[in-house]
Amino acid sequence: MYIHQLENKNECQIKNLTKMEKIIENLKLIKDTMKDVRMYCHAANLLEFDQQTICPSKAMEQQGEIYAFLLNKAFVLQKDPAFVQAVIHLYDHRTEIEDKLDCVMVESLYLDHLRGKNITSEIQHEHSLVYNRAFVNWLSAKNASDFSLFATSLDEVREAQLKEESLNEARKATPYDTMLDYHECGITCSDLDETFEECKERLIPLLQKIKASKKKIRTDFLGRTVPEEAQRKMSEFLLKTMGFDFERGAYSTAEHPFTSGLGKFDARVTTHYYPNAFYSSMFSIIHEGGHALFEQNQPAEDFEHFIEFNKTMGMHESVSRFYENRIGRSREFISLIYPKCKELFPEVFHDVSEREFYEAMNIVQPSFIRTEADEFTYTFHIIIRYEMEKLMINGDDSGNMVATTDLPKIWNDKYEKYLGICPTNDRDGILQDIHWTTGFGYFPAYAIGNMYNAMYFNRMKSEFDLSSAIKSGDFNTINQWMKNHVWAHADQEDPKTWIKNITGREFTPHDFLDYLEEKYGEIYDL
Amino acid sequence: MYIHQLENKNECQIKNLTKMEKIIENLKLIKDTMKDVRMYCHAANLLEFDQQTICPSKAMEQQGEIYAFLLNKAFVLQKDPAFVQAVIHLYDHRTEIEDKLDCVMVESLYLDHLRGKNITSEIQHEHSLVYNRAFVNWLSAKNASDFSLFATSLDEVREAQLKEESLNEARKATPYDTMLDYHECGITCSDLDETFEECKERLIPLLQKIKASKKKIRTDFLGRTVPEEAQRKMSEFLLKTMGFDFERGAYSTAEHPFTSGLGKFDARVTTHYYPNAFYSSMFSIIHEGGHALFEQNQPAEDFEHFIEFNKTMGMHESVSRFYENRIGRSREFISLIYPKCKELFPEVFHDVSEREFYEAMNIVQPSFIRTEADEFTYTFHIIIRYEMEKLMINGDDSGNMVATTDLPKIWNDKYEKYLGICPTNDRDGILQDIHWTTGFGYFPAYAIGNMYNAMYFNRMKSEFDLSSAIKSGDFNTINQWMKNHVWAHADQEDPKTWIKNITGREFTPHDFLDYLEEKYGEIYDL
Repeated sequence: MYIHQLENKNECQIKNLTKMEKIIENLKLIKDTMKDVRMYCHAANLLEFDQQTICPSKAMEQQGEIYAFLLNKAFVLQKDPAFVQAVIHLYDHRTEIEDKLDCVMVESLYLDHLRGKNITSEIQHEHSLVYNRAFVNWLSAKNASDFSLFATSLDEVREAQLKEESLNEARKATPYDTMLDYHECGITCSDLDETFEECKERLIPLLQKIKASKKKIRTDFLGRTVPEEAQRKMSEFLLKTMGFDFERGAYSTAEHPFTSGLGKFDARVTTHYYPNAFYSSMFSIIHEGGHALFEQNQPAEDFEHFIEFNKTMGMHESVSRFYENRIGRSREFISLIYPKCKELFPEVFHDVSEREFYEAMNIVQPSFIRTEADEFTYTFHIIIRYEMEKLMINGDDSGNMVATTDLPKIWNDKYEKYLGICPTNDRDGILQDIHWTTGFGYFPAYAIGNMYNAMYFNRMKSEFDLSSAIKSGDFNTINQWMKNHVWAHADQEDPKTWIKNITGREFTPHDFLDYLEEKYGEIYDL
Repeated sequence: MYIHQLENKNECQIKNLTKMEKIIENLKLIKDTMKDVRMYCHAANLLEFDQQTICPSKAMEQQGEIYAFLLNKAFVLQKDPAFVQAVIHLYDHRTEIEDKLDCVMVESLYLDHLRGKNITSEIQHEHSLVYNRAFVNWLSAKNASDFSLFATSLDEVREAQLKEESLNEARKATPYDTMLDYHECGITCSDLDETFEECKERLIPLLQKIKASKKKIRTDFLGRTVPEEAQRKMSEFLLKTMGFDFERGAYSTAEHPFTSGLGKFDARVTTHYYPNAFYSSMFSIIHEGGHALFEQNQPAEDFEHFIEFNKTMGMHESVSRFYENRIGRSREFISLIYPKCKELFPEVFHDVSEREFYEAMNIVQPSFIRTEADEFTYTFHIIIRYEMEKLMINGDDSGNMVATTDLPKIWNDKYEKYLGICPTNDRDGILQDIHWTTGFGYFPAYAIGNMYNAMYFNRMKSEFDLSSAIKSGDFNTINQWMKNHVWAHADQEDPKTWIKNITGREFTPHDFLDYLEEKYGEIYDL
């Protein structure tokens, strides 16, 4: 019967069928392979989660080796000639692929192919070990507050990253542009230079005004002791309030709060409980909870097409910082959670009003640690990181490379210049963040994320009464809007296209800067 | 120069060199392969640890698939023809292998080969999924206290185990003997029938006497509420006291306490904190801490030769129960920790004397849950499991197989017969333990372990003042003796040889039974 049908077709039809069959066959091949790739990556990600939450110190190196081993297996699968041939064939015929997401998947895999085709399994495995060693050494260096213990590893990471860049066949104008593109597809140094210039122009004078303001904000209650158990209950309350699904997620503690996105069925958030800084775990859990909400609400077809974490980390950070700042630090949210704060932390809140709590959560205070910075000065931390990374990767304006040993001084000088403070030790300075143990180009995503969420916040506000929704804890409405507009195509489109499709406007930092001016003008009576 | 040397040798010498070279080459091949096997297994074990501690409920099935995927990769490596050829070649030439542990390794791998040679990768993977499904269903069934939700899975596990047994080329006299041999090399049904018969002969009359005793033991304070935080501090204190190395281990919570032996650098224990049963977490942490001490003190060369968990689970359980019962429930240990109990649990201990605490921790009370049973009635729980498993695997005395649906009734009848109590629901009865989700033949190790440790306890006592060492918390001396005598060859020898080498005597349950008679005679004024 099948033969009979063929006989009735003309040659062209036969060719078409064959071509379509080939496409279907190749799509099946790459999906089957990617399923195995994901198994290895999932196991590796779980090892990483474990390493940052419970793994004993002396087991870390061994576990790092297993992590590298698994990632290498995943890498090798994607190097298989049949797989590579299928990707190239499908890319060449991408206009003939019927399913839109199959096409996105193919384009994404082809880009991966261009980025990685010259990286051998040996290089990949060696670099995995470099990054893991860097993590272990960074941890020791940070504990000892001694940059020199991390300097060699940082050099190794920089070399590894530059080598990967030089082998990348989808290179951009400069090495740092290539690294940016990896995290935020289509964003360049020139975009960021312009954006950050605008930020500096408006935020530096505003910071001066805030510093000069006579406004007194109470902070005396922030250091009051809160037992871990009460903080844990607060974390659970906040996650529940936000709409976090505990059957498809978990929460734990870690030295450095993070989210482990293990897929739709498993989004794990972590926080850290400081007895004398109760608010720290509150806002880190809201931030990480935001990441997790995205995971739990991402379209199932993103997973089926292996395109999660595809094009934009800025989108991810926009979501976490949307929940942390635009919602979490709003008057409405503070009003929503204030009764619970009084109930769980009576030792803190017995003499603190709602307004005092709101102001303290929004006090502008230049400080050393990015993750604990207020919403206003936060952008300066990112600008500093961006300038440091560009310098480390592209060299200075004359293209001269900077010595790793000079980095702490450069770092400290920039804090002096932008924020008027100078770190007195490496732990509070250049060693504070884990990111440089795996590479460069991620930090701008945090600042871009703030700009994305300011844009979609305004859009959301125009569609329903967001203020009332927050105040009444109606996260169902908020999360549903996020699901339909922000999350539906987040990993399917370029970030520039994505934000335009949500808001109807081109990417701009203006919404974010307007918001800061308005909010902090009110708080500081400017 | 190399050629010149060869020329000076006669033919026989040349042959010897070649033979030795071949052995060296094959040893290298199997060690390299086993390193990769271990990587996969380590990752899989970590997934299992995760699944039992923090993994969200809806992610379990997915994680189970990854677990099966990784174990299958390890399995396939050991099926590689070159690897199998090397194992067979080395086994045939084992008398020529110079290093004793290389020889143990080869014998062990050859035994694995005989056990697994007829099991295809497909069967192995299918069975992995069966066991994982059984875990998920057992969890639901236990939560619902409904055996019928687990019955199908239990049938599947039984079928899978019987199939593996039928394909095993190192089969023993009966299927259940084969399963026993897998956990306790060289121990047979006939050994156990004899041993348990002796137990019944001496323990049943003793239990009657205890039941008839007029002795009143205070238990009113056992249900007093203790916050989780205080219990956690107690766990940490107990682990520290025992000599647990926190840099090479961690502790966490789980529904069912267990130890995850991830190697010398990573031994993890778990416990469960019940607010109204403070002693439960104390003794489970001592039990699991005992397992972990073994891991942390096992000879490095066992790992280098891949012979950990080689021949005897009874040895493992002997160690955990040595710390839990022989030490933990002794007058001396109770005296050691009593002050800490008063400090951390004042709400319990304000009116409880040391002797009252000691007696309560040793009260004999027939009960349903094995893991919470007292030291005395514990053996009956194992005898019941043993009889159940033998019945399920070998059939009754006429060889008739029993229907799975009849099992709860058989279970309950045995509890009535041996302990005079009848479970009123499946959760407290046949569903209580996780073990049957992966197979059969493990339980006897617990009872055998008690008998092993009674034998080496007596030996240890004859070499130094053990009583003073416990009372003063000198675990350094105790652990050192364990390291030199119990742990040094635990995975290198057959258990019967191993216990004879430690104690100078053949395996016997008499030391254990003598100990019970003496201890409980004193407590119950018999």
